[in-house]
Amino acid sequence: MNHYGDTMSRLIAALSDLPGVGVKTAQRLAFHIINMPEENVENLSKAIIEAKRNVKYCSVCCTLTDKEKCDICSDVRRDSKTIMVVEDPRDLAAYEKTKEYKGLYHVLHGAISPMLGVGPKDIKIKELLERLKSDDVEEVILATNPNIEGEATAIYISKLIKPLNIKVTRIANGVPVGGDLEYIDEVTLSRALEGRREM
Amino acid sequence: MNHYGDTMSRLIAALSDLPGVGVKTAQRLAFHIINMPEENVENLSKAIIEAKRNVKYCSVCCTLTDKEKCDICSDVRRDSKTIMVVEDPRDLAAYEKTKEYKGLYHVLHGAISPMLGVGPKDIKIKELLERLKSDDVEEVILATNPNIEGEATAIYISKLIKPLNIKVTRIANGVPVGGDLEYIDEVTLSRALEGRREM
Repeated sequence: MNHYGDTMSRLIAALSDLPGVGVKTAQRLAFHIINMPEENVENLSKAIIEAKRNVKYCSVCCTLTDKEKCDICSDVRRDSKTIMVVEDPRDLAAYEKTKEYKGLYHVLHGAISPMLGVGPKDIKIKELLERLKSDDVEEVILATNPNIEGEATAIYISKLIKPLNIKVTRIANGVPVGGDLEYIDEVTLSRALEGRREM
Repeated sequence: MNHYGDTMSRLIAALSDLPGVGVKTAQRLAFHIINMPEENVENLSKAIIEAKRNVKYCSVCCTLTDKEKCDICSDVRRDSKTIMVVEDPRDLAAYEKTKEYKGLYHVLHGAISPMLGVGPKDIKIKELLERLKSDDVEEVILATNPNIEGEATAIYISKLIKPLNIKVTRIANGVPVGGDLEYIDEVTLSRALEGRREM
């Protein structure tokens, strides 16, 4: 691998530490980088270090932001009476794309998973409970992933919140829009049947 | 996309400029980066900018190196009477891995391709001819890729070198070792037949 000199080898090694990047891909990226205009390379290098240094958790909802308080939490037009609990900032982004939800969020940064050694204290549940104490929240929507860890986390959180006299809801299970019934698993089909609505 | 704040968006945008990296992959990489130890992030950021600044072409063979003269050209044990001409530093690395070739290299950084607007002056042919003038070279092995551009480049270079009274050879076409005849194209099969050797 050292046929390109030490500097190049260091770059290839650093790139191949990234997820999904093997040595071949790292080489391809490295060759691309040294052929990029210097300005773009500086940009990329700076963006990496600045993201690491400046990106932090919003003091309210724990999503990623460069500010003390993220744009959504700072937006007075949002409905502060509703909090949607998600596992990851990417889930928040996914719901924001729907443009349907006008409430606030709370990002757990994970889900309870005994298998992976993630307990309730390892995710931002304490921060959520703190918010519920002070804020005037009427509903908490649990939008953790529809898998074992996400369900367990939802059940765990709902048990903590119910005594506070706040409505707790869970996003619906059912057949995805545009999906093909033939290829949908039985559990989803059963849940879709259970949750059927009159037309 | 701006649900993660500006710093994160800048990183995602910079990463998605890389080849083969779409927005989804860039997001995944960006999330990985902000969760990496600060030291590794600094390393990556530095490796990128240093590669761009320090990696240059070897003054002799034009391969990538951080030095004035690459390790292969500086190695007195190599046979300086033979030069293998390749299109790319990665081709050099591929031949180095065979551990069979003991001569020197010359990296063209491309192949003649009228389709892509690459002419003989855009690749390191002039540098090769300069080397042949001064050095005591006995054989030039043309190891450009076995495709139209590579063949055209090989033919072009061979015509320039022949008058200099230097032996010019081309790497053999034939069936790849471990290949399956059934799946090999007709041109390769014909070339393998033409190039047959007595056993």
